[in-house]
Amino acid sequence: MTVPSLTALLDLLSGELRDAAATYTRRLSDMRGYYRDPEAEARLLADDPLIYTYGESFAPEVEGQLRFGSTIIQPGRVGDEYFMTRGHYHARPEAGEVYLALRGHGMLVLDRRDGRGEALELRPGTVAYTPPGCAHRAVNVGDEPFSFFSVWPANAGHDYASIQRDGFSLRVVERNGRPTVIPARSAP
Amino acid sequence: MTVPSLTALLDLLSGELRDAAATYTRRLSDMRGYYRDPEAEARLLADDPLIYTYGESFAPEVEGQLRFGSTIIQPGRVGDEYFMTRGHYHARPEAGEVYLALRGHGMLVLDRRDGRGEALELRPGTVAYTPPGCAHRAVNVGDEPFSFFSVWPANAGHDYASIQRDGFSLRVVERNGRPTVIPARSAP
Repeated sequence: MTVPSLTALLDLLSGELRDAAATYTRRLSDMRGYYRDPEAEARLLADDPLIYTYGESFAPEVEGQLRFGSTIIQPGRVGDEYFMTRGHYHARPEAGEVYLALRGHGMLVLDRRDGRGEALELRPGTVAYTPPGCAHRAVNVGDEPFSFFSVWPANAGHDYASIQRDGFSLRVVERNGRPTVIPARSAP
Repeated sequence: MTVPSLTALLDLLSGELRDAAATYTRRLSDMRGYYRDPEAEARLLADDPLIYTYGESFAPEVEGQLRFGSTIIQPGRVGDEYFMTRGHYHARPEAGEVYLALRGHGMLVLDRRDGRGEALELRPGTVAYTPPGCAHRAVNVGDEPFSFFSVWPANAGHDYASIQRDGFSLRVVERNGRPTVIPARSAP
């Protein structure tokens, strides 16, 4: 099989990826139960705010092939918890992922199956590597859209179910006007 | 084996990658015989100009792991041929590579083992995908440094020898002040 070359245009200032093979929009109603404060979630659902948009390229799900995409997370919070992506493990635990932050102020929350979590700060130009075996979630902790470009093995696959069931071991919340990383078990 | 997470800082304006695990500098004397015009090469060797610099991250050479790097190619020509990288195939032909152009004006020249070549134009924000099985070389066709960020499977490996022996099927030269793609067999 000959795979064609491919070009797309990424707006380096906004993070918008034109020519994406697939685009997705996630509103709060698409991620019920992900935030720690059910009452704040219920109040916000009346407006059902846009949380993030996402575009990605296509490449066959074969070893060695790569896909790339961009994600733009809106600024905002559900209660004290910053807007974030759902987050996932790769279905193939050996698959890593590279992030390049383009705009705004974000965090990358990583979790390992053994419960060891960490949070990396992302500013424009930060390149972050999610090593194999880590769940990963991006969080917008600033007051403007936070966007990043990412690249992952095309055969990585996605495991969203583990996160939906267990969540991450860390959450990023606002405390005295500043983003603060807390254990997920803390009371709202 | 637990692989640690990793962050590095990429200057989105210049393309410079700080915190690289390894950096390389390629002067003309490091790539003798790559350009089409031996007399122009010999004349320039007196100054031995810097052609490009390159920095990359480390990740184990294992399936699913990814490495990333940045390349900055200086503006200039050897005779009528624009400054360029040596170019390589991946030793593992199934490995692709993603490029994100950051600054300047460049081209990505691709070649397949069957001799089918193509050249893709790269402007800031262009994302280009080198599919599996393609040799790839970047060329600076502008008057300022051309830089790009790239991501590839950590186990891709490099085959520089095929290019050193056979070259690419296409070359990028200046004609009437404009970058022009010509078959490599053309006379200087």
